Amino acid sequence: MKLLVHCNHIDAPHITPIASLYNAAMHAIILSIGDELVLGQTVDTNSAYLSAQLASRGIMTRFHQTIADDQDAIAQAFTWASNEADLVIVTGGLGPTEDDLTRQALAQAMGVELVVDEESLAAITGYFAKRNRIMPDRNRIQAMQPRGCKAIPNSCGTAPGMQVQFSRAMIFVTPGVPSELFAMFRLSVVPYLDELAAAQPALRRTILTQKINTFGLGESDIAEKLGELMDRKRNPLMGTTVSDGLVSVRIRSEFDDPQKAQAELDYTITQAERLLGPVVIGRESQTMQAALVELLLAKKATLATAESCTGGLVAKSITDVAGSSAVFAGGWVTYANEMKAAQLNVPMSLIEKHGAVSKPVARSMAQGAIEKSGATLSVAITGIAGPGGGTEAKPVGTIWIAIGSRDQATGTIATDARLYYLPGDREQIRDRAAKCAMQMLRFHIMGIPLDELRWGRKQK
Amino acid sequence: MKLLVHCNHIDAPHITPIASLYNAAMHAIILSIGDELVLGQTVDTNSAYLSAQLASRGIMTRFHQTIADDQDAIAQAFTWASNEADLVIVTGGLGPTEDDLTRQALAQAMGVELVVDEESLAAITGYFAKRNRIMPDRNRIQAMQPRGCKAIPNSCGTAPGMQVQFSRAMIFVTPGVPSELFAMFRLSVVPYLDELAAAQPALRRTILTQKINTFGLGESDIAEKLGELMDRKRNPLMGTTVSDGLVSVRIRSEFDDPQKAQAELDYTITQAERLLGPVVIGRESQTMQAALVELLLAKKATLATAESCTGGLVAKSITDVAGSSAVFAGGWVTYANEMKAAQLNVPMSLIEKHGAVSKPVARSMAQGAIEKSGATLSVAITGIAGPGGGTEAKPVGTIWIAIGSRDQATGTIATDARLYYLPGDREQIRDRAAKCAMQMLRFHIMGIPLDELRWGRKQK
Repeated sequence: MKLLVHCNHIDAPHITPIASLYNAAMHAIILSIGDELVLGQTVDTNSAYLSAQLASRGIMTRFHQTIADDQDAIAQAFTWASNEADLVIVTGGLGPTEDDLTRQALAQAMGVELVVDEESLAAITGYFAKRNRIMPDRNRIQAMQPRGCKAIPNSCGTAPGMQVQFSRAMIFVTPGVPSELFAMFRLSVVPYLDELAAAQPALRRTILTQKINTFGLGESDIAEKLGELMDRKRNPLMGTTVSDGLVSVRIRSEFDDPQKAQAELDYTITQAERLLGPVVIGRESQTMQAALVELLLAKKATLATAESCTGGLVAKSITDVAGSSAVFAGGWVTYANEMKAAQLNVPMSLIEKHGAVSKPVARSMAQGAIEKSGATLSVAITGIAGPGGGTEAKPVGTIWIAIGSRDQATGTIATDARLYYLPGDREQIRDRAAKCAMQMLRFHIMGIPLDELRWGRKQK
Repeated sequence: MKLLVHCNHIDAPHITPIASLYNAAMHAIILSIGDELVLGQTVDTNSAYLSAQLASRGIMTRFHQTIADDQDAIAQAFTWASNEADLVIVTGGLGPTEDDLTRQALAQAMGVELVVDEESLAAITGYFAKRNRIMPDRNRIQAMQPRGCKAIPNSCGTAPGMQVQFSRAMIFVTPGVPSELFAMFRLSVVPYLDELAAAQPALRRTILTQKINTFGLGESDIAEKLGELMDRKRNPLMGTTVSDGLVSVRIRSEFDDPQKAQAELDYTITQAERLLGPVVIGRESQTMQAALVELLLAKKATLATAESCTGGLVAKSITDVAGSSAVFAGGWVTYANEMKAAQLNVPMSLIEKHGAVSKPVARSMAQGAIEKSGATLSVAITGIAGPGGGTEAKPVGTIWIAIGSRDQATGTIATDARLYYLPGDREQIRDRAAKCAMQMLRFHIMGIPLDELRWGRKQK
């Protein structure tokens, strides 16, 4: 199923100020079921995801409520919510064990019995059969639902969801596992809302949003480049957020006329991307690795990686991208110096003279990666990710990154390297180093001087 | 103030299963106020923090409720919660701007007026004076509170909190900023609970918790192995949760006598770990890669990786662990077949005859990784992570994993491989494949037959 592609993708996309939503045509309530939530063992991220999705469609969520695995309390919440809201989305409590009580509670609230849904039973039996297993007896309960409910197929797990009109509200019940919830939301709630919006003009207000992701400059550099586009009174409205070293620019266009909203959004995006230049990775959830793979495909280039301190993170990131096999030859994780020498032909004397974390070693690794792989491009990373291993001259966070490229005509290999001092802990340093490496590759391919990548750079 | 030390530290300490908490001496409700929460712009982490803190003191949180910045809705929630619970903790809506309405809503619910608290006014004026600023007029509202409330000083910001007995409940109101909330919780709620516990022996129970993480069996296999240890009436009480392929067993011991609670917990953990056997990775937040590195260090073994479909994920995971350089020689990401042949000496004829995703190729990769790295152990992974590349004979999720080992005495290299069919999308398949590979390595090192790792396995 195509939906599975999105199973693990959380987008919290569309930031909708509330003033106009108080007058929204539809109000929602979100219920989350589970002891692990009311006991604080798990932070509820599902409700925020659902609220953001609804807000982007002009639907105001009035309440989130989290309830323990207690059938009476859940049944009361069903009754309350279905009287208070037009749309009720419920997550959790659909598992096969004794403490999963959402089905029973909905039946109690509706005053009906639980009945077996044969299609769901077949799907669950099939799920186990596909794995060469007999369905355990306890999973049978997952095929049951209150009489009158419609089952929602689960493309990622065993528990089907449920949909039913009860009292004032349309109720959707989904599993609490985020990947299953996301898939089911797209499969069942989105089509329902689209249908409603088509029928009710009041739901057809147009709020369009878009996010532009950048890497290579700080937040204030970005704000300076954007200038008056960031005026708070402007529509489309623009704001910046920082996450994992990326600076994202969020744009929101709200107009009565859908065409105007789209045209204004497009115009603002074009202006912003022009002002921001090559630090732009892409829009929405486009990752650095996806942008890099796209560029490699467009240039018919192939890439090899040679990693020391990042330990395979760059290769892992690139191969996250479906279809990367067309441009990624492979890579080396040369953690030990002997591996650098034996596998990438880095002369031991070079390591002894300059240290493994040095410009000559980074360049030699990049050179070796091209020679050994036959790729047209390479990137090499050697540095100190910590927590140990830092010295006064080379503190934790010192990272050399080299780019290697083979001249197609002459076959000559050229290498160039830059030094970064990256902040943070081991995990952050490795993450930022991998991002710097991938952005350097993009700059190199686009013919942009590497020094324009200012993030973490220090002249040497 | 000493409290400030903890301003940014979230601890989710004591995992308390709910069964006995249903009979807890005190019940709590947590209310979170704010448009940013019901719109999904911000994930509510405060409620989980507060619930965990309360659970560790034997107090059951019955509900979380999140409410928009709407005075009537907040007032209704105050009325409802103070009738339903003994303790109500409210976060948010205490700022100086027009959309901060928690004070007004509490006054409305209590049927009293807002009055100025002179001490709070002096504190807020002083807060600004200390920063060489005049207090803006709009901050005056922060010194106001419903008549009858006690102000709680704010050691981190301007908004004081409030405490009041109303209806059945003791109500505490704190700012929504996590650092201010944490400080105020320790400053006001904890002393109140300690005082109650001193007066009411029923609140002086000891609750100790521990989590055991496993990989290699399904949730129902784990339940079967644990048998009557999972009886819902048992103390210590045991429950299981699944996340990212790991099955975790949560244990909670609750007794009046602290020594008895510890002894019973220890005994139950020992029993559980004995019944579960080698699938146990470790306790609490111990990761698979940390457990593997620990085992490699203990056995003075060194490891090399040869990855195709996981594209460096195993190497990346192992090098996540600080200190892994002592056991990790390095690895290859042989994405292209030419790299498998040139770098790992996999005969091209083998790939042509059996395909790159096959037992002989996996074993040959493991063999090459040992030969080329000099490591004592190797792991090789070749499979189809999707979304493309699947066939009827080898569908997406088909993964061969081989272990290679060098006999220390004779120098001979032995290899062995297993086939897995892993469910999910590309990201999940890669994640589970990496975990299978690392768990296979652990089983191999511990001398456990690889077939005991049943997760995703299918006989061939």
